[in-house]
Amino acid sequence: MSARPVRYVAVVGAAAATPAEERIAGNVGRALAEAGAIVVTGGLGGVMAAACRGAREAGGRTVGLLPGEDRADANPWVDVAIPTGMGEARNALVARAVDALIAVGGEFGTLSEMALALKLGRPVVAIGGWRIEREEPATDPILRARDAAEAVRLVMERL
Amino acid sequence: MSARPVRYVAVVGAAAATPAEERIAGNVGRALAEAGAIVVTGGLGGVMAAACRGAREAGGRTVGLLPGEDRADANPWVDVAIPTGMGEARNALVARAVDALIAVGGEFGTLSEMALALKLGRPVVAIGGWRIEREEPATDPILRARDAAEAVRLVMERL
Amino acid sequence: MSARPVRYVAVVGAAAATPAEERIAGNVGRALAEAGAIVVTGGLGGVMAAACRGAREAGGRTVGLLPGEDRADANPWVDVAIPTGMGEARNALVARAVDALIAVGGEFGTLSEMALALKLGRPVVAIGGWRIEREEPATDPILRARDAAEAVRLVMERL
Amino acid sequence: MSARPVRYVAVVGAAAATPAEERIAGNVGRALAEAGAIVVTGGLGGVMAAACRGAREAGGRTVGLLPGEDRADANPWVDVAIPTGMGEARNALVARAVDALIAVGGEFGTLSEMALALKLGRPVVAIGGWRIEREEPATDPILRARDAAEAVRLVMERL
Repeated sequence: MSARPVRYVAVVGAAAATPAEERIAGNVGRALAEAGAIVVTGGLGGVMAAACRGAREAGGRTVGLLPGEDRADANPWVDVAIPTGMGEARNALVARAVDALIAVGGEFGTLSEMALALKLGRPVVAIGGWRIEREEPATDPILRARDAAEAVRLVMERL
Repeated sequence: MSARPVRYVAVVGAAAATPAEERIAGNVGRALAEAGAIVVTGGLGGVMAAACRGAREAGGRTVGLLPGEDRADANPWVDVAIPTGMGEARNALVARAVDALIAVGGEFGTLSEMALALKLGRPVVAIGGWRIEREEPATDPILRARDAAEAVRLVMERL
Repeated sequence: MSARPVRYVAVVGAAAATPAEERIAGNVGRALAEAGAIVVTGGLGGVMAAACRGAREAGGRTVGLLPGEDRADANPWVDVAIPTGMGEARNALVARAVDALIAVGGEFGTLSEMALALKLGRPVVAIGGWRIEREEPATDPILRARDAAEAVRLVMERL
Repeated sequence: MSARPVRYVAVVGAAAATPAEERIAGNVGRALAEAGAIVVTGGLGGVMAAACRGAREAGGRTVGLLPGEDRADANPWVDVAIPTGMGEARNALVARAVDALIAVGGEFGTLSEMALALKLGRPVVAIGGWRIEREEPATDPILRARDAAEAVRLVMERL
């Protein structure tokens, strides 16, 4: 039992990511694995694949919660692939499944995962990507990190 | 069959809303009903209740997709109350169920519904509340309205 | 508020139903509408369409919780059509959404809805279709009806 | 990549199971792990815990798809615990996530998982528990096994 992992952290971002975003996501995955966390993603390509690959290369474990019905959609670095068949509703599963969330860039799907995680009280860290604020008072509830190391440090010190 | 409603529009916002937000939400619900749309909400209080009440007072129909397991949680102006028992994952159901979405203020749950609707390609209009933008280029994908009439006009001319 | 419907009853069964099953489902829908209940179905054809049609012809209201993403999949007698995009997981939504369930024949999807409704403590009535029993003691938890009138009577006297 | 597991098999049954059912479930979990399969359960006690324990003791891996919101509900032999917050709708996730399903005894929730797996075309094997049949022709679509070894053999030769 002692080997049971303490923390689950989502790494979210676009399937169609830039090379820079993929490089950052790989570093996030690697740093999370080194910190002993299980990496949870949406299981597809781009940021999701890069994070899983980084985590696996560092000896970590990865979970993919897929939107579709076919396990074969998972990227090859997913250890445990769960085809949910729920479409975008799986974003709520990602947010629910984790103790914290790190976004690397990302599109609307990523934003929904950030919002759902915030709703659930999880720490949310972003590297680039979305800025959000209420009109008044103007506040941004997202923790900002410049790189993977800072993002993982911000997450782990809150868990 | 001819009476079958053409459009479903979500009105989303906080259960703990300000009196100003509730007044606006009531006007949104009323204007949607007058435009022949079915009003879909999360079924609870605050903005949700005000929108349903406004729609009902104008002779419209309302649907509540509740997060919990108990139909009795629905506000009294919900015609069709669906207790989903899915928690925050019901926010994806709200976004999926509608042709467009209007946000009146709102917290993180509201933001998640906006993001999920944008992901699905639905028009999203906000009165107050969240501003979102990508770092570069700095763009806000949300249509902005100053009042209920403008919000409903922006939605209906896109459907 | 006084017009707010008291009871929601699911009518479940195959999309590829026999003419006899559709005739029975139509009678079930009609009798439920006359009893003041909202008819909830999976929104598609066969038993689902027949039940909705029967309810509408008797002046009742109908809800369709669709498995797919497209509202246009709903049969034309659905008043409120909710495309869930959740595939078979919408069967759990059907069971959760109602106060009782009537099955007319049906395949495996129908059986899952019956089981989920039983799990949630809802009365379940079957006309034909599945028989289920535990090995010991040999008991069938499903109420059996010979026709639509008996099925609706069995349901309504338990609500 | 070569270590990536080929098959996911659900072991389902009651949280309040008999000692005999737990013994069988433990043997099922062990045999599945020895066959290289990942064991997926609802993550709670009884049959679910026994299956996970058996799999872990044989060096296998286990996934728990929890109905509630709290990872701490998972039994201690779950490797990857996913709190879905979806209640009984998680039964559809269990059926969707696996390539085959083995039921050991079980109540209505178990029956719903069997039905959902059958609907999705997965092989379903039962040791004791539910018998289901259509009225005509009288057929039982479930494979019957007398013990854990036979159940796992029936599953693995179909995958």
